[in-house]
Amino acid sequence: MILCDIGNSYYHFYKDGVSSKMDLNSTPKIKQKSDVDRTIYYISVNKEAEKHLLKDNKCVNLEQFVSIESYYDKNDLGIDRKVACYNQENGVIVDAGSAITVDIMHKKEHLGGFIMPGIEAMINNIQSISSALDKNINMAVKLNQYPSNTIDAISFGIFKPIVLSIKNVSQKKNIVFTGGDGKFLSKFFENSIHNERLLFLNMMKIIKDNNLEG
Amino acid sequence: MILCDIGNSYYHFYKDGVSSKMDLNSTPKIKQKSDVDRTIYYISVNKEAEKHLLKDNKCVNLEQFVSIESYYDKNDLGIDRKVACYNQENGVIVDAGSAITVDIMHKKEHLGGFIMPGIEAMINNIQSISSALDKNINMAVKLNQYPSNTIDAISFGIFKPIVLSIKNVSQKKNIVFTGGDGKFLSKFFENSIHNERLLFLNMMKIIKDNNLEG
Repeated sequence: MILCDIGNSYYHFYKDGVSSKMDLNSTPKIKQKSDVDRTIYYISVNKEAEKHLLKDNKCVNLEQFVSIESYYDKNDLGIDRKVACYNQENGVIVDAGSAITVDIMHKKEHLGGFIMPGIEAMINNIQSISSALDKNINMAVKLNQYPSNTIDAISFGIFKPIVLSIKNVSQKKNIVFTGGDGKFLSKFFENSIHNERLLFLNMMKIIKDNNLEG
Repeated sequence: MILCDIGNSYYHFYKDGVSSKMDLNSTPKIKQKSDVDRTIYYISVNKEAEKHLLKDNKCVNLEQFVSIESYYDKNDLGIDRKVACYNQENGVIVDAGSAITVDIMHKKEHLGGFIMPGIEAMINNIQSISSALDKNINMAVKLNQYPSNTIDAISFGIFKPIVLSIKNVSQKKNIVFTGGDGKFLSKFFENSIHNERLLFLNMMKIIKDNNLEG
C-alpha cells in the first residue's frame, strides 16, 4: 500500500513508513520496479494533479469511503479536511499548509470551521503591499508585547491574528496541528499536539475500516 | 491650503472641505486656475508618487513638523501612522487601507503597533490559493458562529482574525478607525468611532501648531 495526499502545492506520499513530498508540477514517480503491483490510495483537492497520478498508476480514490457527520454544506467540505477530522471525537483540527483550515469537532460531529491564507501566502502578501513592508519576517517575534519596529510589526501582524482566531474557537479544547506549518503554530498552544502524519494515519484507518486491503 | 496624503494606492486630496482620491498612476491634478498660488501640504509613504506631486506644484512636506513620543525604532514608524496618532491622548488608532496599521497610544505616547495586509489584499490572497477558494466574500458573515460553507469559511477567516487582533490590543480603550475599510471594521467594535478624515484633520492641526499658514 502506498498513500498519496494531493494538496494545493504538493503531492504528499507515504510508503513503507517514509513520507515525502513532490512539487505538483513534477510527474509523480513514487514506485520502484518492485512496487509495480502496489495500489496507491489517494485523496485529492486538485483535479489536474490527480490526472497525472492516475496515469500509469493503479489507484483508489478514498473519497468515496469517507463520511463524516457535519453541519457543513454538502460538497463544500474538502476531502483533506474530512480525512483530517475522520474519527476525531472532540477538539480542533488545524491543517496549516498553503491555506490554514481550522475545524471544530464535538462528539464526532463536525460543527464547522474556517479557512485562512497559509503563513507563506501571508508573508508574500504583506511584502507585496509596499517596498516599506518588503522585509524579512521574525519567526520568533514576541506575541505578548507591542512591536516596536517594522519587521516585528509585520511578523506580529501575521502570527497574532492566526493564533488568536484558533484560540478563540478552541478555548480549552485540545488542538491537533498538522501540515507544513503545524509544528511551528503548535508552539503557541499549551493544549495542542503536533501530528505531521495525521492525514496518512487517518487514511490508513479508512482503508482498515472499509477492508480495502482485504 | 490644499492637503494631500500619498498612500500606497492613492493620492488622497482635501480642498475646501471636499476630499477626493486619485489613482497613483495618474498625474495628480487638483488645482484649478484660481488655485495657482495655493500651497499643497502633504505627507507621503511613496517616493515615486511624491515626485509627480512636486512637479509643477508649490508643496510643503509636513513630515519635518511631526514629532511623536514613541518606543518605536526611529525612522521605522511611517509618516501616515505618525500623523494618525498625532495629538491622540489614549486609545488605539486603526488605519485600514492597502495595509491595516494598528497603533496604541497611552498618555500621548506611542507604545507600539502592528501591520496586517488590508482587506482587499486578504481577499485576493485567499482567492489565489486554489480554485476551490476562489469564491465571493460574504461581507455580512456572522463572526459568532462556526461557518458551514466555503464562502462563509473564507470570509470568517479574513475578518475574524483582524477583529480579534484589534480587540486584543484595545481591550476597553477607545478605537478610532480611518482609511477605506475603517467604516466597515468599526461596526465590529462598540468602543469605536469612525473618522474618515482623521489624517486631514491632524494635518490641519500640525499646520496650525506650527503656524505654517501665517
